[in-house]
Amino acid sequence: MSGLHRLDIATLAGLLQSRQLGVLELVDALIERADAAPHVHVAPCFAAARATAREADREIAAGDWRGPLHGIPFGVKAAIDVEGCVTTTCSRLRAASPATDDAAAVARLRRAGAIPLGLVHCAELCLGAPGPDDAFPWPVNPFHPDHSPGGSSSGSAVGLAAGLFPAALGTDTAGSIRLPAAFCGVAGLKPTDGRVPASGVSPLAPSLDQVGPMARTSRDCAILMDALSGVGGHAAGLTDLLDGLRLAVDPAMLALAPEAWRAVLEDALAVFRDLGAVIAEIALPPLGAYFDCALTLMLGEAYTFLGGDIDRHPDRISHITRTRIRAGASRVALLPEARIWREALARRTAEAMAGVDAVLLPVAAGDPPRRVGIRPLDYSKAPMFTTPANVAGFPAASVRCGRSPAGFPMAFQVMAARDCDGLALRIAHAFETATPGFDLGPA
Amino acid sequence: MSGLHRLDIATLAGLLQSRQLGVLELVDALIERADAAPHVHVAPCFAAARATAREADREIAAGDWRGPLHGIPFGVKAAIDVEGCVTTTCSRLRAASPATDDAAAVARLRRAGAIPLGLVHCAELCLGAPGPDDAFPWPVNPFHPDHSPGGSSSGSAVGLAAGLFPAALGTDTAGSIRLPAAFCGVAGLKPTDGRVPASGVSPLAPSLDQVGPMARTSRDCAILMDALSGVGGHAAGLTDLLDGLRLAVDPAMLALAPEAWRAVLEDALAVFRDLGAVIAEIALPPLGAYFDCALTLMLGEAYTFLGGDIDRHPDRISHITRTRIRAGASRVALLPEARIWREALARRTAEAMAGVDAVLLPVAAGDPPRRVGIRPLDYSKAPMFTTPANVAGFPAASVRCGRSPAGFPMAFQVMAARDCDGLALRIAHAFETATPGFDLGPA
Repeated sequence: MSGLHRLDIATLAGLLQSRQLGVLELVDALIERADAAPHVHVAPCFAAARATAREADREIAAGDWRGPLHGIPFGVKAAIDVEGCVTTTCSRLRAASPATDDAAAVARLRRAGAIPLGLVHCAELCLGAPGPDDAFPWPVNPFHPDHSPGGSSSGSAVGLAAGLFPAALGTDTAGSIRLPAAFCGVAGLKPTDGRVPASGVSPLAPSLDQVGPMARTSRDCAILMDALSGVGGHAAGLTDLLDGLRLAVDPAMLALAPEAWRAVLEDALAVFRDLGAVIAEIALPPLGAYFDCALTLMLGEAYTFLGGDIDRHPDRISHITRTRIRAGASRVALLPEARIWREALARRTAEAMAGVDAVLLPVAAGDPPRRVGIRPLDYSKAPMFTTPANVAGFPAASVRCGRSPAGFPMAFQVMAARDCDGLALRIAHAFETATPGFDLGPA
Repeated sequence: MSGLHRLDIATLAGLLQSRQLGVLELVDALIERADAAPHVHVAPCFAAARATAREADREIAAGDWRGPLHGIPFGVKAAIDVEGCVTTTCSRLRAASPATDDAAAVARLRRAGAIPLGLVHCAELCLGAPGPDDAFPWPVNPFHPDHSPGGSSSGSAVGLAAGLFPAALGTDTAGSIRLPAAFCGVAGLKPTDGRVPASGVSPLAPSLDQVGPMARTSRDCAILMDALSGVGGHAAGLTDLLDGLRLAVDPAMLALAPEAWRAVLEDALAVFRDLGAVIAEIALPPLGAYFDCALTLMLGEAYTFLGGDIDRHPDRISHITRTRIRAGASRVALLPEARIWREALARRTAEAMAGVDAVLLPVAAGDPPRRVGIRPLDYSKAPMFTTPANVAGFPAASVRCGRSPAGFPMAFQVMAARDCDGLALRIAHAFETATPGFDLGPA
């Protein structure tokens, strides 16, 4: 069967359940594509995946179909343990021995029948950026090789866009699922804090780190969330209409977004109105307050966990990542205050959203940066629209919504209230269903 | 003598000391101009001023010249006590009996020989804006009658621009000296927190409220600060060159400023380089973090002090001010956290500025808003560039630097480190001296 690499989980599940497609056939087709996007796979476990695929084929043939993830191959960000793979987080600082257990999120997907293809590239220690002394070379943005694919879940996003797998796990501390998803034209969800267990994940900033699904569509993210969250109902709750739902925009946030993005948002709002939603305006706390709180927590905690290693082994870390983590030294003393302030911002976010179902925000402040010439602290100079969801602990889905003047995918976030992950995905899915014209990139 | 109303303190002081000009002559000339800008004077004490002027003329004739403020008339924001005047803060909520003492700042200026002309308009309770149900009508912006003169030290700024007095006192909680100064094309300083005593000032948010000088030039502000601060040295430290001084800009802040403002700043930086200064880039905490902290402190404290009065007498307060103060109800519980966060932001501001002498920031994000159609919470939607100095407690001078495309004055702030009020004024003065072409408005 050709073109398998373009199919989404929902379509593949039908083919696998009905045995029009074999699991091993699918896994082999994807393994054959592994080189289509170099540097995505950093610790593949293709032999184990083929063995598991044969087992899945036997189970499905015996009528023991576990559900829509049975036989679905997935990539795992290299910060998340997969039994038998070395969790390097793409850093020379990390141990060289293979993980002896799956991380909880991997175990849950495996229990649902999904098959890990191994670890895929991530930004070094989940905080790096492309630079001249990378330990692990970066995969390229599928829309333009000179531009960053986004971090830190880079391999997950590029692998999805390039057709290397139909599902992936990422982690998001300050935007690391949503930004690469947006830059590569795929879908991703930063779940409500704590909804997906983080055990078995290399810490960057444990108070913020969240594991979440990445896929080609929001529907697929919902299918993955059913398994990842352990509670179900995400996929079953999807609808094509949004009658009476109240979606909000925050004019002060929009004023910070690029002009081209605001134009695209206007079109998206028209789509949402056609779907029956009502658009309201709300006032969240200022973006700079979220951003400052998130950076303080992220850099302060990262320095706490990694600063000693870096000082002992400066040669084992790239210049960019070293500089970024060392920038956290001055924030360590601020962590207790930042934790109090985070609670206040979360409370005020909930108050501001009390009358609406979700708020629409940009994902990125512009096109992906060029890979050459990125300076270590560039990212900390402009507030990131992804940080409100991290600070508030709220779920936020990244949704494709068009192309920028330069041809890069554009995306918005649907941020819903705590524990309303299913609602965020429902809104994202209805938009995607109503706007099938956004292609998934060059895969 | 004609044209007296255009002269600055430094020039007037020479004329008064040499007795080319009599104090009573000056006071009478200004009283005669009182109607040139309606609604500035809300509680004049012209008879007392004339009596004091006669006394000053006698003292100076007797050779007892007290210094450059001797015989200089000044306007006092209607939130600051002047003995014998009713401190209304332009609100129907306030008591109707005259103050029995001068505020400390008024007393200090009086001791230096300056003569209060009475109370001048301020935004209602220092938090209002022009609206249809104002208790006290607003004076008009001297550059365009349809636009706001800025608040809350509105009468001080308009009176200076319109030639009603050469000096004034304002108060600044989140920009209330610097914004009207900028909008009316005059000079003003928000001093280091606590440097000018605030006793005798109606509280808005006592942890932030500061009293400061407003005048036609930064040199005049320095002359006033010598008396107001009680320590002297501000005027004596002024120079025309800035050799080796390090001035900084924060690119992330500038990115939030309007395009026209950034262009004007480029010209200003060239002037500063000509004066011998070195320009550096620094990274302050994000503007949104300062702004959020300042709004929480201001609105939370204002509600604590004024909420009960407003709930008891809603008919005695305008719609705009009532709405603004009630918006503070939800922030009261956040005050303890905001105070902790303020300390952290102050510390980080000091760290960011450790290698430089001062940082240049915009004052306002654009031209003065139109007076009609101002909505109560508009001001809280876009971060205010004035709030870093309030949160950090640092001195910041507002300096004219050109005209906007629409013809309004533009200004920048010179923010220096704690207790470096004299340095901020020195930098402001050197710029004004090098760029005499910026006229002072239509007075």
